[in-house]
Amino acid sequence: MAARARSEERRAEIVRAALEVIAERGYRGATLGAVAERVGLTQQGLLHYFSTKEALLVAVLAERDQWDAVPARSWRLELLQSLVEYNAMRPGIVQTFSALLGESVTEGHPARAYFTERYAAVRPSMETVLRAEYGACLPSGLTPAQAAPLLVAVMDGLQFQWLLDPDAVDMGAAFGHFLTLLEGPEPPSSKG
Amino acid sequence: MAARARSEERRAEIVRAALEVIAERGYRGATLGAVAERVGLTQQGLLHYFSTKEALLVAVLAERDQWDAVPARSWRLELLQSLVEYNAMRPGIVQTFSALLGESVTEGHPARAYFTERYAAVRPSMETVLRAEYGACLPSGLTPAQAAPLLVAVMDGLQFQWLLDPDAVDMGAAFGHFLTLLEGPEPPSSKG
Repeated sequence: MAARARSEERRAEIVRAALEVIAERGYRGATLGAVAERVGLTQQGLLHYFSTKEALLVAVLAERDQWDAVPARSWRLELLQSLVEYNAMRPGIVQTFSALLGESVTEGHPARAYFTERYAAVRPSMETVLRAEYGACLPSGLTPAQAAPLLVAVMDGLQFQWLLDPDAVDMGAAFGHFLTLLEGPEPPSSKG
Repeated sequence: MAARARSEERRAEIVRAALEVIAERGYRGATLGAVAERVGLTQQGLLHYFSTKEALLVAVLAERDQWDAVPARSWRLELLQSLVEYNAMRPGIVQTFSALLGESVTEGHPARAYFTERYAAVRPSMETVLRAEYGACLPSGLTPAQAAPLLVAVMDGLQFQWLLDPDAVDMGAAFGHFLTLLEGPEPPSSKG
């Protein structure tokens, strides 16, 4: 029992170290060797916890999902805007997410299940946010179920444009324009 | 001179063969060996034309850009809708685009220049389409320059969701909803 707790603690420590290495050196620099060195393990020792770089990176992304998570009832679109602006300050993890998302669409990729399940959860979660904010129909005329995949697509798509050319794309401002689209041309009705 | 023409013809033949292999076997199946076999070259012979798989795939994507290109004045948003629906029928090339886009955001990737230049051209091109259709301000209140990166982001982002789970995401319908957002809740004013 103590051994298992120690093992899980060690695993969490490796994931945190990987996040640091990603932040400093980016996707390509985040090798198993670099992460092993940071936690004082041999590469062989690290393989005991994560057998591939992909498995480690998926664990990092899943951990980020946990950290970014907000209780469903507390979510509002404004928070998504903050999340996009926050992401613009952490290019390493956004790059890792985007690179792995790209790889995941290829046949038999180890990250495919993670991303498929993630989107299957994120779309309904965004739908809930939109329904809580706007009810059954957005000011723009879309239903929450129609708008949710677009919300997710815009966030992902802007990340690629921004990573490739950070000076040309202001991710936060662009996402703000998308929220303007969702809200429609009228100013949203204010609630007392 | 004849040798150069022959060489360029051979190059074009290889790119067409690669497109076929991609359509049949997807991104991972499109190996240099498989493409070489299709055009009756040894892998060594193919390397004379394309030194890496990435270089060959970038040539395929650039060729597709040419085929998909419509003279700027003829573009309308409706054509983009048709393009998205057409893409839903060719998963192999969309998968190749998406996988390579993902890889391209990593340090020193050979496809990075292609994608950076592509987006630097596609954003203003979409802006021109939007301006031709709506003038200086869209019904939704955005300027064409604000809407263009969103249009591109939605197309890219939906492709990832669709590739990961084709049954859950109707790419054409979802893109249609985005066009509804751009047009705003009012029906667009009809022109005689």
